Amino acid sequence: MPALILDGKKIAEEIKREIKAETDKLKSQYGIIPGLAFILVGNNPASESYVKMKNKACNEIGFFSITEKLPDKTEQDFLTDLINKYNRDPLIHGILVQLPLPEHLNSDKIIEVIDPRKDVDGFHPINVGKLVIGLDCFKPCTPAGIQELLKRYGIKTTGKHIVILGRSNIVGKPAANIFLQKENFANAIVTIVHSAADDIIKYTRQADILICATGKAEFVNSDMIKKDAIVIDVGINRIPDSKSKSGYKIVGDVDFASVSKIASAITPVPGGIGPMTIAMLLSNTLKAAKNFTNAYIKI
Amino acid sequence: MPALILDGKKIAEEIKREIKAETDKLKSQYGIIPGLAFILVGNNPASESYVKMKNKACNEIGFFSITEKLPDKTEQDFLTDLINKYNRDPLIHGILVQLPLPEHLNSDKIIEVIDPRKDVDGFHPINVGKLVIGLDCFKPCTPAGIQELLKRYGIKTTGKHIVILGRSNIVGKPAANIFLQKENFANAIVTIVHSAADDIIKYTRQADILICATGKAEFVNSDMIKKDAIVIDVGINRIPDSKSKSGYKIVGDVDFASVSKIASAITPVPGGIGPMTIAMLLSNTLKAAKNFTNAYIKI
Repeated sequence: MPALILDGKKIAEEIKREIKAETDKLKSQYGIIPGLAFILVGNNPASESYVKMKNKACNEIGFFSITEKLPDKTEQDFLTDLINKYNRDPLIHGILVQLPLPEHLNSDKIIEVIDPRKDVDGFHPINVGKLVIGLDCFKPCTPAGIQELLKRYGIKTTGKHIVILGRSNIVGKPAANIFLQKENFANAIVTIVHSAADDIIKYTRQADILICATGKAEFVNSDMIKKDAIVIDVGINRIPDSKSKSGYKIVGDVDFASVSKIASAITPVPGGIGPMTIAMLLSNTLKAAKNFTNAYIKI
Repeated sequence: MPALILDGKKIAEEIKREIKAETDKLKSQYGIIPGLAFILVGNNPASESYVKMKNKACNEIGFFSITEKLPDKTEQDFLTDLINKYNRDPLIHGILVQLPLPEHLNSDKIIEVIDPRKDVDGFHPINVGKLVIGLDCFKPCTPAGIQELLKRYGIKTTGKHIVILGRSNIVGKPAANIFLQKENFANAIVTIVHSAADDIIKYTRQADILICATGKAEFVNSDMIKKDAIVIDVGINRIPDSKSKSGYKIVGDVDFASVSKIASAITPVPGGIGPMTIAMLLSNTLKAAKNFTNAYIKI
């Protein structure tokens, strides 16, 4: 039987409809429109395309959004001041600094400037720490999207062995910290494997659920997975494609053609975790707007 | 060949001598004495004994320390005010609220009151988050002690499979986040396994290094480990012992007698990770005092 395709695009649309309904309520009841500020530095084409897609999603569901497009040579202090402006701005509930930043900028320091209450990417140390401890926080959008997708398909994870390929601060580490929590659709045994392993396959073949976030195009092949595993492909890689007008095509970290014959379920690229990531960004921004609204009401 | 005993007590003494030398320098050069405030609520005998041991270690190496012993019925606001007093106190560089707190208190909220610069236990969300991201922070004392013990014995961990039994915020989770970092004496493949696993042995038998933090007396037996594994026992459990004057004895989470025949190296209980934990607390407090001193000098 071919693998079930976990349709992130469809589920993301479903979530966006729910967020839109809540947004409409927030507008009519309190006159609050969730507002998101995108900060994009430099001319990285992938980053430009991500911000464009996120912005489009904001427009679709009735969020207010601003995009600050800054030159590659932007200085640290300028960026800090701009973030502080949005920290103070009552119409902005979420601030997203698109990563990676140009090398001369200190990303860690920039992220720490964001008001944790507006940190809808969930990258501020205080949100990262709360995620680990199990406190209410903004969960990073990609791993939150993975968890939400599993949840909407009713795929339980308690006691399952989740193997995560890659230990980035954006995907691998927060995914581990999410799926370790003692709660539904988490509570898993988690292994993080990465480039320091002698024998990656030894680990990946044990996975009931394999999360692939290596950033290497079609790195995971059918030899690397167990029969009937659930395969989550986080990769978004451009590879040359002479048949395409643009000259490239987008593929994941997983060799979909071979792996989908062995897996019981798999996310496609595009149309899998990508749209879920955007849906979670919107969800975090709505949450931020509601938190601020609740704070006003209490006053 | 019997397992090498990883002598935490001896190594901790070595570290304490180093800290004492640095403390003497700090005193003579800047007139600064590292100061640590212990806050102990209620009459938990284990907590009382831990605070006593930590306090004794402070005295031995010439730290200033204060112990606030509060009744079991202490209220949240009182405790918060007391922590804030020490947050402002320039003679106090570290604040340690001994856990667990009585059930009517919200430990998470209490910990968040501690100035992160004085959070020598490394439990404040901002320190937890920085640990995950790989930024400079106070590492929680027990997992930091495990790493330091391996380092002092020259036991490399790069590419090794470290399996952690237990997912507490004090040991299991921070240990995972420490050993995942891309740095020496870390950079390991990490699995966290816990009570939700159907078959714990399947995971523990894979460990090159097994960290046992279950809180269950002598839970890990020789069937659960691979030949020549390195076994780190974090447990401190009291079990009845008719031969002892006190009527009890202290054992770890590992059945030392059987496991030490299979393992290549093992930490004893007592005299293993316990003293290392205290040494790391002193090390964190010295670091806090130095950080404050550097801040003064800059002014």
